[in-house]
Amino acid sequence: MQSVHIMSAFDEELKYLSKRIASMGGHAERMVEQAVAALVNADPGLAQKVINDDAVLDEGQREIDDKAIIIIAKRQPMATDLREIVGAIRISADLERVGDLGKNVAKRVVAVTDGRQPSSLFRGLEALANLALTQLKEVLDVYASRSVDKIGFVRDRDDQIDAMYTSLFRELLTYMMEDPRNITPCTHLLFCAKNIERIGDHATNIAETIYYIVTGDQMPAERPKGDKTDKISLSAPLPAK
Amino acid sequence: MQSVHIMSAFDEELKYLSKRIASMGGHAERMVEQAVAALVNADPGLAQKVINDDAVLDEGQREIDDKAIIIIAKRQPMATDLREIVGAIRISADLERVGDLGKNVAKRVVAVTDGRQPSSLFRGLEALANLALTQLKEVLDVYASRSVDKIGFVRDRDDQIDAMYTSLFRELLTYMMEDPRNITPCTHLLFCAKNIERIGDHATNIAETIYYIVTGDQMPAERPKGDKTDKISLSAPLPAK
Repeated sequence: MQSVHIMSAFDEELKYLSKRIASMGGHAERMVEQAVAALVNADPGLAQKVINDDAVLDEGQREIDDKAIIIIAKRQPMATDLREIVGAIRISADLERVGDLGKNVAKRVVAVTDGRQPSSLFRGLEALANLALTQLKEVLDVYASRSVDKIGFVRDRDDQIDAMYTSLFRELLTYMMEDPRNITPCTHLLFCAKNIERIGDHATNIAETIYYIVTGDQMPAERPKGDKTDKISLSAPLPAK
Repeated sequence: MQSVHIMSAFDEELKYLSKRIASMGGHAERMVEQAVAALVNADPGLAQKVINDDAVLDEGQREIDDKAIIIIAKRQPMATDLREIVGAIRISADLERVGDLGKNVAKRVVAVTDGRQPSSLFRGLEALANLALTQLKEVLDVYASRSVDKIGFVRDRDDQIDAMYTSLFRELLTYMMEDPRNITPCTHLLFCAKNIERIGDHATNIAETIYYIVTGDQMPAERPKGDKTDKISLSAPLPAK
């Protein structure tokens, strides 16, 4: 069966960028999933795999940047097409950062699991990661469909991620105060939680870029920035001296 | 006296982007300087000023993005000029992130200084901030002069920043283990230190972008990523139960 739609070389170039972004997105999701699994299951082998996998995203970003610039120079696109290309540059930068954050979680696996922490410590982190990953997946679905009318969910889920991160932050501080042996692993878990919260922020950035690609406008009003933990000031019991 | 050099409208547009970047850079530096000063001197008023100042960088990035896209569409630039414009988009994104990180330090001022920490706690953070700020300043000087032959210093100083961050990380963990009352403020200081280490990373990103603008090549070989603290696993004394 012959295709009725004849694509121009330019359309094909744009489609290539979109496909490349989609594949970077899938790769970034897997890295984050596996990094968290490596942490929960104390699996340094899986952590090492995630660390190695990061190079794929660095390479993806570099390729998209190079291709995008060649397309702009060669095709001199206007309006939507230009936004599509500039948007691809931005989204690939966000996905590369998501990969870096996943890798950073993976690199902490040994330091966190050294002392065999109770699994309850990981449950909160797993829930946070699930929420951030759902955000990333749905945003990438919007990228595939370009249906920005559904994009309202992004802000709501961002709020949920922030609230869950804030409560996890408090919980981890409490564990640290209960027993000094928890301080080192919980510090690494705090950074893991922060990384995951930031993955949610990058997903939101991507949503904003998609909105810009489709409508030509910036999403109105800066969203309140994620991290609310800066105000947290738990007081510890007096030391048992 | 009449200028002998007649500038084209296009040259002026490019020059405008460069000037805008330089002014964003100066603004970002000041924010980081003042955020650290607010922390060291327990000055919530100055911290609030930094938090308010962040909007200037958000606006700067937005303006550069919009202008850059208009210039590309209108002028259809090639080679160096195109790299100059794409470079401006990237650098303004890095500077906007530097501002966010400075703002995040400022937001922690109240939580950190609540309990009046000994000033020794801040000395390491100040030294780290000085190093990161010197990196940022010198990179912005390279942007102004476009003399990438001098860019070798960037990697060396990045290594120094990483080493200093790692030792500060250890020091803060030790304070936390000594006295549970240190846990909350030191956790915030850990995040402040991480933010400052990342400001150094953004300065290095900017150096890489400048290298790309001037030479058309990516700086060879990915630099080893900054944070070496992921391996740190200090053991605490047994709890005094």
